[in-house]
Amino acid sequence: MKTVTVNASVRYDVLIEKGCLSRCGEMTAEIFDPKKSTAAIITDDTVAGLYLDTVVDSFQKAGFSVCCFVFPNGEDSKSHDVLLQVYDFLIENHVTRTDFIVALGGGVVGDLAGFAAATYLRGIRFMQIPTTFLAAIDSSVGGKTAVNIPAGKNLIGAFHQPSLVVCDPCTFSTLKPETFADGCAEMIKYAMIWSEDFLRLLETCDINEQIEEIVAYCVDIKRQIVEQDERDCGIRMILNYGHTLGHAIEKITNHTVTHGHGVAIGMVLITKLAILMGRCEQPLLNRLCAVLKRYHLPTAYDGKVSDLIDSCLHDKKRAGSIIRLIFVSNVGKTDIVPMDTDDFTKLLSEDTPC
Amino acid sequence: MKTVTVNASVRYDVLIEKGCLSRCGEMTAEIFDPKKSTAAIITDDTVAGLYLDTVVDSFQKAGFSVCCFVFPNGEDSKSHDVLLQVYDFLIENHVTRTDFIVALGGGVVGDLAGFAAATYLRGIRFMQIPTTFLAAIDSSVGGKTAVNIPAGKNLIGAFHQPSLVVCDPCTFSTLKPETFADGCAEMIKYAMIWSEDFLRLLETCDINEQIEEIVAYCVDIKRQIVEQDERDCGIRMILNYGHTLGHAIEKITNHTVTHGHGVAIGMVLITKLAILMGRCEQPLLNRLCAVLKRYHLPTAYDGKVSDLIDSCLHDKKRAGSIIRLIFVSNVGKTDIVPMDTDDFTKLLSEDTPC
Repeated sequence: MKTVTVNASVRYDVLIEKGCLSRCGEMTAEIFDPKKSTAAIITDDTVAGLYLDTVVDSFQKAGFSVCCFVFPNGEDSKSHDVLLQVYDFLIENHVTRTDFIVALGGGVVGDLAGFAAATYLRGIRFMQIPTTFLAAIDSSVGGKTAVNIPAGKNLIGAFHQPSLVVCDPCTFSTLKPETFADGCAEMIKYAMIWSEDFLRLLETCDINEQIEEIVAYCVDIKRQIVEQDERDCGIRMILNYGHTLGHAIEKITNHTVTHGHGVAIGMVLITKLAILMGRCEQPLLNRLCAVLKRYHLPTAYDGKVSDLIDSCLHDKKRAGSIIRLIFVSNVGKTDIVPMDTDDFTKLLSEDTPC
Repeated sequence: MKTVTVNASVRYDVLIEKGCLSRCGEMTAEIFDPKKSTAAIITDDTVAGLYLDTVVDSFQKAGFSVCCFVFPNGEDSKSHDVLLQVYDFLIENHVTRTDFIVALGGGVVGDLAGFAAATYLRGIRFMQIPTTFLAAIDSSVGGKTAVNIPAGKNLIGAFHQPSLVVCDPCTFSTLKPETFADGCAEMIKYAMIWSEDFLRLLETCDINEQIEEIVAYCVDIKRQIVEQDERDCGIRMILNYGHTLGHAIEKITNHTVTHGHGVAIGMVLITKLAILMGRCEQPLLNRLCAVLKRYHLPTAYDGKVSDLIDSCLHDKKRAGSIIRLIFVSNVGKTDIVPMDTDDFTKLLSEDTPC
């Protein structure tokens, strides 16, 4: 088993092992007292069909009382409607401050269940059992929770660290190839912003063979960043490499381009901009495109640049008329560059060969 | 001007001065840069009619951009419906992480606007301008924010400290006498749980003459408690003196008995229980009742004890089958006593002359 210990405002372990799902209850009993706390498991109907029985069995065997809430799979469920249903479920099951929530699933489940945990009774504890590669290396660690509102994704949320993260990479085997690839985009992002060694590993490894090591590598990079800037006021912004343009593409395409695929294209576009600005060299772009292709990810945007600009300027990371862009000059070397939105528009519309 | 500085996870000042409302903008400019931050003022229609123009003028004179959201007065507005309207207002006005929310009003405004600030873009800064005596000495300080759901009051919320609290006690002059008395109940609570000197002051003072001193006294007591236990896991519970039974009475009467009036009766009932348990003496009860009457507050409950018990056992402060009661044995001396709900039911139903 690989363990990464995160020292944020709450200290917690991320435990990674193939096949550990059937032991998640006993792993949790190391943190929460089964005699004193109920596990309120929140998941979606896709994950429930695959893994809920295993998880419930394991928690019950470990001595926990268990209650479960299952909502329809998909981003549409990350809404206030479903959130209010979660609150009702927690109240009906008399969940109190001594109990905890278990977020079993991908990013939607983790964000929604985490936000419920952050706000129910002004905050109760929760744990994450990510079942997608993307959630395992990104959203399940670091304490960002969120729900969507009609005006945009993740506009409402809270910072609320989990008490434990249990990751069984065997669950990734039930993902569609393109959903697994979404995780690969974030994996490549970690390498680009942080580590030449890790990028070299990704350029040559057998990902299935080395999945535990790769998850641990990504989580450990995120740990180092989150420990320095838990509330996303400084260095944590580098995790948004490729994301401003990636989110814009997701939004324009009404999410037919998924998160990781958007980020993949976003990383390519921002690297092209960086080259135009003299901030990096062509070989970095070539290397990025090659590794993206190795993991079946796109490297080109085929929409209108004007749509991309409009969408970017509504991004929530914008502070006033300044947009903050993340550039990678060399692998592991990032710059956070505040740019006037007019300059950004000009640069993107005139010069970028999308 | 009286200043109380709170050293919680955020350090902030509570500024108290008669007539300071017309200078609230310049007072705020000491904390937020008017050139870089918009003031998003949230208030209700009652308060807006009385004070919004003054506040907007003052902020604009200090150089702030201002936008305003006004919702209908009353507890019914502390809902997710209104919360979603607040989010839409913030988005329409392009409020970003460098801006801040101003909660102008009583407890409903402070709790709702504070919760919006806690959750919009995962948390932006906010300040409180309490216009009721109750909000000035209780909800505006300490960082508790909340909204209601149909299942109960304040079940959803977050801890989010304000960056500044500006209190003009002249605003209390427009309160109905019974609304002012609601604040008096919390004021008496502070004296009971914390300070013989303060109780003696309350037994003899002219409250209108000494209102600045009294607000500062209450806020300073709350400060001392919140600094020790910001997240309400220990000593902060003593602020709930009289509240378990008080909330129950509010709920039973569908809030025709208001918060302070419920707390007044709650303090009397819990003191009667304390006498029965040998935890305090009759003279303390006599003194409590006398000071409550001095401030036009009730001292008796005329409903059914069985309703009171039912309502108490649904209180959110209950952890499992244990209810935590706050007893005052002598003025300034409190005990937090976990009690089995069966014992509590028995004691309350058999022995208490309500």
